[in-house]
Amino acid sequence: MAKVALLGFGVVGSGVAEVLKENRETIARRVGEEVELKYILVRRDFPGSPFGPLMVRDFGEIETDRSVDVVVEAMGGVEAALDYTRRALTAGKSVVTANKELVATHGQELMELAFRHSCGYYYEASVGGGVPIIRPLRQCLTADRVTGVWGILNGTTNYILTRMIRGGLSFDAALAEAQEKGYAEADPTADIEGIDTCRKVCILASLAFGRHIFPHQVPTRGITGVTLTDVACARKAGCQIKLLGRTLEGEDGRVRAFVEPHLVREEDPLAGVEDVFNAITVRGNMVGEVLFYGRGAGKLPTASAVVGDVVEALSRRGGGKAPDWQKGGESATVGSDGVADRWYVRLAGGKAPEAFPGAQVLSRAEGMVVFLTGEALTAEELERRLAGETPLSAFRMLEG
Amino acid sequence: MAKVALLGFGVVGSGVAEVLKENRETIARRVGEEVELKYILVRRDFPGSPFGPLMVRDFGEIETDRSVDVVVEAMGGVEAALDYTRRALTAGKSVVTANKELVATHGQELMELAFRHSCGYYYEASVGGGVPIIRPLRQCLTADRVTGVWGILNGTTNYILTRMIRGGLSFDAALAEAQEKGYAEADPTADIEGIDTCRKVCILASLAFGRHIFPHQVPTRGITGVTLTDVACARKAGCQIKLLGRTLEGEDGRVRAFVEPHLVREEDPLAGVEDVFNAITVRGNMVGEVLFYGRGAGKLPTASAVVGDVVEALSRRGGGKAPDWQKGGESATVGSDGVADRWYVRLAGGKAPEAFPGAQVLSRAEGMVVFLTGEALTAEELERRLAGETPLSAFRMLEG
Repeated sequence: MAKVALLGFGVVGSGVAEVLKENRETIARRVGEEVELKYILVRRDFPGSPFGPLMVRDFGEIETDRSVDVVVEAMGGVEAALDYTRRALTAGKSVVTANKELVATHGQELMELAFRHSCGYYYEASVGGGVPIIRPLRQCLTADRVTGVWGILNGTTNYILTRMIRGGLSFDAALAEAQEKGYAEADPTADIEGIDTCRKVCILASLAFGRHIFPHQVPTRGITGVTLTDVACARKAGCQIKLLGRTLEGEDGRVRAFVEPHLVREEDPLAGVEDVFNAITVRGNMVGEVLFYGRGAGKLPTASAVVGDVVEALSRRGGGKAPDWQKGGESATVGSDGVADRWYVRLAGGKAPEAFPGAQVLSRAEGMVVFLTGEALTAEELERRLAGETPLSAFRMLEG
Repeated sequence: MAKVALLGFGVVGSGVAEVLKENRETIARRVGEEVELKYILVRRDFPGSPFGPLMVRDFGEIETDRSVDVVVEAMGGVEAALDYTRRALTAGKSVVTANKELVATHGQELMELAFRHSCGYYYEASVGGGVPIIRPLRQCLTADRVTGVWGILNGTTNYILTRMIRGGLSFDAALAEAQEKGYAEADPTADIEGIDTCRKVCILASLAFGRHIFPHQVPTRGITGVTLTDVACARKAGCQIKLLGRTLEGEDGRVRAFVEPHLVREEDPLAGVEDVFNAITVRGNMVGEVLFYGRGAGKLPTASAVVGDVVEALSRRGGGKAPDWQKGGESATVGSDGVADRWYVRLAGGKAPEAFPGAQVLSRAEGMVVFLTGEALTAEELERRLAGETPLSAFRMLEG
């Protein structure tokens, strides 16, 4: 009988308890033995919960119980989660997490620690919720050199953009609706400013290119600057506006990683990803582009990803899992330096965009001109051409 | 140094040689040692090929060379491929294949044989070309009970349907164009009659539900009956016509598996899958629906999937891989029995569809009536309601 301890009993934690119970037989068949949830670490009472008898308040109980094979960290935050994760790994217990902040900031260190103690640190649920993406990158696309990964990594912002595009709602109205439906938090900053997407693209970049990329190294712009005018003009160009996390390996061997709203052509499968769904495209030098799509959040999809990691951790018991990436450093990544794309530009003034030969004008009204540049430009080239003028909007266009 | 032998040097075989050469370093890092292509079994000369020195005519050379760890079967067909696969497995060499016909007809037997000889039989490339689907089902969605798998599994028919939908070409003109472009063979029967899709859905059904499902157990209808009228009427209903392979587990515990053209709602990501791309949706009882999308055929994408299996086979050397599914039997599957969907029906005569309460009439012209049934019906119920009348077209509608 394999034994699991769960830290935290919020949305993800209670989902994990439910999946372990509901799919007990399927999971036992895959692990080769029954999997028992032995402890749930909580900070408050859950009166009437059927899991009440498993609840404990002291992490030390879990840490010192040698029968516990795997610890699921579903607490969120960094401080306590980091402390408990280190202690669990040091005690030789594999740790499974959905905590993208912790993986993005301390993933490499925790994987090293796990390996030294013959266990593993698993994080499938930290990116894409229920969408399998970490294990496909680690185990499926093994014949390819990955050259890029990009996608819609945050369901809240995608819901807001979908309501702006399909429903004609303003950003503020769409945000209010997302909050009403429980898709956005009372303080939506981490979502709408791209911070959540930034953490996820750090994890994808680290895994794809083998060196730890930290959030402070990734230039991040959210969707608060996207207007209904932009949505309408993008559609004229046959595009949808989507918040993308993107990472690429440059010819200099350094990683590019950044978060920005992009224009995505309607023929691109990412353009059709609506509401709270997530989708991630991986480009390999042999396979071309493959895409993974599904529910990027939610109790049971996220719990499904967590428990998938529990199954893997139990199947590898006794063998340490080597770190998926090496240490990073300030030189590992250079933001979006040198990444040239065509740009969508909205300028006050209505003057023709003379500095942009081949530009496609999308609208010229209300004292504004909106156009697509004819050439692919880096952000620096764009700025130079704009010659001191600050655009109302400037978004990269994702080329197929 | 790990050693690989390749059987066949056609499109897939030459792609495998290219991937092993081009990504040598990446692959060596993942396997933990260099991977050498030692033999290529061919039936004719390839004058001037840089791989000439590796070419042999006698399978016995490969069979008896104890240094060969993995054999890649890229011959196609059943007779010789089956013989060589059995001999390689019996000699303890893992076999990797892209041969869907062989996996669909003899997969279980070959996996048993591999397990007895402490090696494995791998087949990621047999479904979806470069799209990872076999390994995600085996290794990623392990916390879920899979309840259904369906998708666009054949690039040729999807190309033809796309050209009918987007280009207004007739079926015959679209087929001729596909043949010109090399997407369809001179004898296109296996593609357009759904036989290729049938083999792939057998593999997906066997893997998802654990019992071997054979092609003769899967009712199969291709796209030769799809007309431009159907395409236009489907669009009026907000749908695209797609050839789907579908498999579901019924409440009686028996598997449903069938191949038919379906109406797919435009909101469904499958509707946006165009040209020769493939996409497969997996439904789990916890994760909901996840979708895998990419190039379903082509030299390098398929070779990428094959070499991914080579990496896995080499990583597991010495340990047998247990069969992914058990023996089948006539009672394992019951076609589409009991599967109720709404239907698209095109009838000669133009009479109102009285036997279908709640029907949505899409067109009533040229002595025909075209409608969607209001209720979900099984194929038998549909036939009973039609009371002897043979519809010009009758397609299931995939509900989200």
